[in-house]
Amino acid sequence: MSNRRIVLASRPVGAPTLDNFRLEEAPVPTASRDGEFVVKLQYLSVDPYMRGRMSDSKKSYAPPQPLNEVMTGGAIGQIIESRNPKFKEGDFVQGQFGWQQYALSDGTADGARKVDPNVAPLSAYLGILGMPGLTAYFGLLDVCDPKPGETVLVSGAAGAVGSYVGQIAKIKGCRTIGIAGSDDKVDHLRNDLGYDAAYNYKTVTDHNSKLKELAPDGIDVYFDNVGGVITDAAILNLRVHARVAICGQISQYNNEKPEMGPRLLGMLIVTRSRIQGLLVMDYAARFGEGVRQMAQWLNEGKLTYRECFEDGIENAPKAFLSMLQGGNTGKQLVRL
Amino acid sequence: MSNRRIVLASRPVGAPTLDNFRLEEAPVPTASRDGEFVVKLQYLSVDPYMRGRMSDSKKSYAPPQPLNEVMTGGAIGQIIESRNPKFKEGDFVQGQFGWQQYALSDGTADGARKVDPNVAPLSAYLGILGMPGLTAYFGLLDVCDPKPGETVLVSGAAGAVGSYVGQIAKIKGCRTIGIAGSDDKVDHLRNDLGYDAAYNYKTVTDHNSKLKELAPDGIDVYFDNVGGVITDAAILNLRVHARVAICGQISQYNNEKPEMGPRLLGMLIVTRSRIQGLLVMDYAARFGEGVRQMAQWLNEGKLTYRECFEDGIENAPKAFLSMLQGGNTGKQLVRL
Repeated sequence: MSNRRIVLASRPVGAPTLDNFRLEEAPVPTASRDGEFVVKLQYLSVDPYMRGRMSDSKKSYAPPQPLNEVMTGGAIGQIIESRNPKFKEGDFVQGQFGWQQYALSDGTADGARKVDPNVAPLSAYLGILGMPGLTAYFGLLDVCDPKPGETVLVSGAAGAVGSYVGQIAKIKGCRTIGIAGSDDKVDHLRNDLGYDAAYNYKTVTDHNSKLKELAPDGIDVYFDNVGGVITDAAILNLRVHARVAICGQISQYNNEKPEMGPRLLGMLIVTRSRIQGLLVMDYAARFGEGVRQMAQWLNEGKLTYRECFEDGIENAPKAFLSMLQGGNTGKQLVRL
Repeated sequence: MSNRRIVLASRPVGAPTLDNFRLEEAPVPTASRDGEFVVKLQYLSVDPYMRGRMSDSKKSYAPPQPLNEVMTGGAIGQIIESRNPKFKEGDFVQGQFGWQQYALSDGTADGARKVDPNVAPLSAYLGILGMPGLTAYFGLLDVCDPKPGETVLVSGAAGAVGSYVGQIAKIKGCRTIGIAGSDDKVDHLRNDLGYDAAYNYKTVTDHNSKLKELAPDGIDVYFDNVGGVITDAAILNLRVHARVAICGQISQYNNEKPEMGPRLLGMLIVTRSRIQGLLVMDYAARFGEGVRQMAQWLNEGKLTYRECFEDGIENAPKAFLSMLQGGNTGKQLVRL
């Protein structure tokens, strides 16, 4: 029996490729010290932020992913061996366990946290009840403070975070507009996620006019997952005292140098708007609140979610590359 | 006796010139209706925001200045005739009276407000105790919330607003760094305004390196009056949870189309920083508080200020153009 795992083989220049990753085999770890336990992983999470970790040339909020080490990433599974009284054999745990089949944990460094498979399916703890769900919850409610009747625009609206943001905004009584990258996704936004309006950015060249059409009175809240020309247009259509959360800038992640775009900060004076960067870890002390509320909405049928699966550890890089190109609707996962 | 006044003759394309203005003579107004009064103006204010009003092609927070009408602008003077019981002959008043020698007021539309020449010289009510002072006060304290020990960077630091911001930041126990456009101004920042560090942006090409040298631990608060490459560098040097107030973007005001610059919003995620547009009129309900506090600091000797004068209504355009090019240190005024 071996522990198959994916390591970072080389740093991408521009768009990552499968060659940047390597599948390795290592012995299955054992808990050799008190406090340690071994998790047999069932689901891996692939998320846009990992693209940033693959580079070492850009300033970031976290150190770069080291070469030849297991790719960082959230995962979830069941404990098969434990020398830690808080994490028992048979318990289900979530943490930054990385892209591998078995993880050795000390229960702290990787943020290991027990989860209850009776509340929601295990995979949900990597999505709507996990980091993406908490990002949507705190990012929308805390950073953007949406009020009933306000217009909320979401880019990357069919992705994991975006699909939750739109639904939370509806729960809060807002009008929602979503932007996504295919007609199927746009149908999903309108029919399943309750978006009041939505459009496919790949078939629109003049985002400014499109937003004026969909939000003639302007945008109160913009939850940004993508950046670039869509965000330019959003800034041009903000209402007075609008709030913008910068959650992701996926359109920019493959640039080695910053792309050039129009200087629009002067528009913030016109509308006295606010643009704020968002990192979910800043809300770690309130994760319990977030998960409880999201689980309650889920159980009340007020939230729904979709997942995309690739099977097998060897397909984690493929799942990641697909997600970076918008291949997923909802949360992209790897099922082991 | 006539009322000499400056009207907008044409809209500038790019940098304004003297040809965009015209000196006219009109009869001195009289208070013909109850509620009206006539002010003989003594000082006119010229401010960067007026450049925005001269254009009609850009979205703004206020309608454009109409052609062939008296240039908008704050001014101060003494009432020479009144049919308004709240504004008596002999009272000193400040308001949006425009670039002229005599103004007819109804006491409301132009925001007329009585001032006390015993508290401070009349001209101060157009500067440190006027709109620029209130902009500095609310912009720094309310938008940026500086804390003792934090590093505050100010662009346009020798201008009216910037020169007050740096001093308020020092009162609040911050370390201050100022950027200005001449060595004389830099000396003024260091020697008169208490800036801990300052540099002349015209002799520096790599602002990023310069800011890293002056603020090796990064910037907590950035009060921006200029925009452009200086603001790019500031954003690259923000600390975690930094706050940026966009008060002005004077480097951009003459552009007919937005200048291109690097897309840096992703940096806000790295530092979870906030950029917010500022317009002093949003704080109108608290102007009393602001003026009282600024006057108190002034009387306690904790604030100082400088003024630049041009004499004569005919020189208002010249004063304005000089101010746009950074010819002023402190508040630019026209003395009638």
